[in-house]
Amino acid sequence: MNILIKITYDGTNFHGFQLQPDERTVEGELNKGLAKTLNKEVKIFYAGRTDRGVHALGQYANFYSDTTIDIGNLPKVINFNLPEDVSVVDAKYVPEDFHARYDARLKKYRYVVHLSRYRNALLLNKAYEYPYKVDPDRMRKALSYLIGEHDFNSFMGKGAVVKDSIRTIDKIDVIEEGDFLYLDFVAKSFLKNMIRIVTGTALEIGRGQREIEYMKEALKMKKRKAAGPTAPACGLYLVDVKY
Amino acid sequence: MNILIKITYDGTNFHGFQLQPDERTVEGELNKGLAKTLNKEVKIFYAGRTDRGVHALGQYANFYSDTTIDIGNLPKVINFNLPEDVSVVDAKYVPEDFHARYDARLKKYRYVVHLSRYRNALLLNKAYEYPYKVDPDRMRKALSYLIGEHDFNSFMGKGAVVKDSIRTIDKIDVIEEGDFLYLDFVAKSFLKNMIRIVTGTALEIGRGQREIEYMKEALKMKKRKAAGPTAPACGLYLVDVKY
Repeated sequence: MNILIKITYDGTNFHGFQLQPDERTVEGELNKGLAKTLNKEVKIFYAGRTDRGVHALGQYANFYSDTTIDIGNLPKVINFNLPEDVSVVDAKYVPEDFHARYDARLKKYRYVVHLSRYRNALLLNKAYEYPYKVDPDRMRKALSYLIGEHDFNSFMGKGAVVKDSIRTIDKIDVIEEGDFLYLDFVAKSFLKNMIRIVTGTALEIGRGQREIEYMKEALKMKKRKAAGPTAPACGLYLVDVKY
Repeated sequence: MNILIKITYDGTNFHGFQLQPDERTVEGELNKGLAKTLNKEVKIFYAGRTDRGVHALGQYANFYSDTTIDIGNLPKVINFNLPEDVSVVDAKYVPEDFHARYDARLKKYRYVVHLSRYRNALLLNKAYEYPYKVDPDRMRKALSYLIGEHDFNSFMGKGAVVKDSIRTIDKIDVIEEGDFLYLDFVAKSFLKNMIRIVTGTALEIGRGQREIEYMKEALKMKKRKAAGPTAPACGLYLVDVKY
């Protein structure tokens, strides 16, 4: 059977999702946990990698197995074989040809900014502590230039291996909630560091360090140095993937 | 001057708030951080101790100092001298005779329960993972017996040193939000482990393991073994203190 699992993790102590020799990765821990659970090694196919330090509420992976463990109990059994900072929160059977990456229609990410003059100990590694006043409406205007299909080369992290840097952003919402500012991104796929560079640029605009039009110009320039800084990984969450 | 600070901490790696020789405590770290900031040792007076593993969004402490550091910058400077899991989020001058414990009118605590069949890695040490269905209305009815002034001896942890176990609970709210159940408690003061024992008992009633009347009877019995289990510390947050 082809089984799809939904995975959460605290990215703080992982060197990202993707398997790497000699580094602690989410994929590496999943491989070990699944091998223990199923008594054999399986290959997982996942929705998309996340950078070192990035969290997930809804990462997905599928694998083939003839396990007789009840599908409703499967997450619990796998979790028993996983470290505390990664867990499976759902499991279901999917068609034989289902693929967690190729069948992903949309990915939703949230970037969490804590707007406060003073850091909050309970948010350690869970939000970007940004001790400045920002104008969310300036950010909304600037971010509206990015909606739709564009060449996002200016917002791509160095060392990315891709065919092209053209992507389509369906939606960006800027939500204010108490001391928090959430930037919600929806797209079929994103480039390496793309959300973090867009967020870093949008925050400089929100703070008044850059003009609103800076976002439009950065997009046009098609080179990384035209855009703002990369916001830290700890504020970013892969929230869900739509199939 | 008498200075009142508002403090947040992640209780996971502390042996509680109160100073203890040879143990890492919040008070111990605050003493060290304040001594570094003010270049002299100060005695702090705090709103109330919290148990090992309990978190705080709004703990308070006052101390006397003639520091010339601007009061708006003071939290930032103190935070620089504190470890990552404790921080100061506000500071203000208070009258000379103000005392963070004696002047506390009300304390608000929140107990966070995650109602899910499977654990969530991002909630590690931050909520009580309770993999059962509960009926919040049964909990509300049972908890209503505790409102007002009562002898809470049945809900007091062992080893507590108190004059008496009579306390007054002003309010208990049970709030449902997605997979979360919040139990919000308001009172001038609580006994040792009181909120955790009340929560543990209320959850057994919510789950249907105990009758609603069990809460009333437990209260009447005035002995610890008449009530339910102590819910784990990691779900409990001192949210705020009203002066």
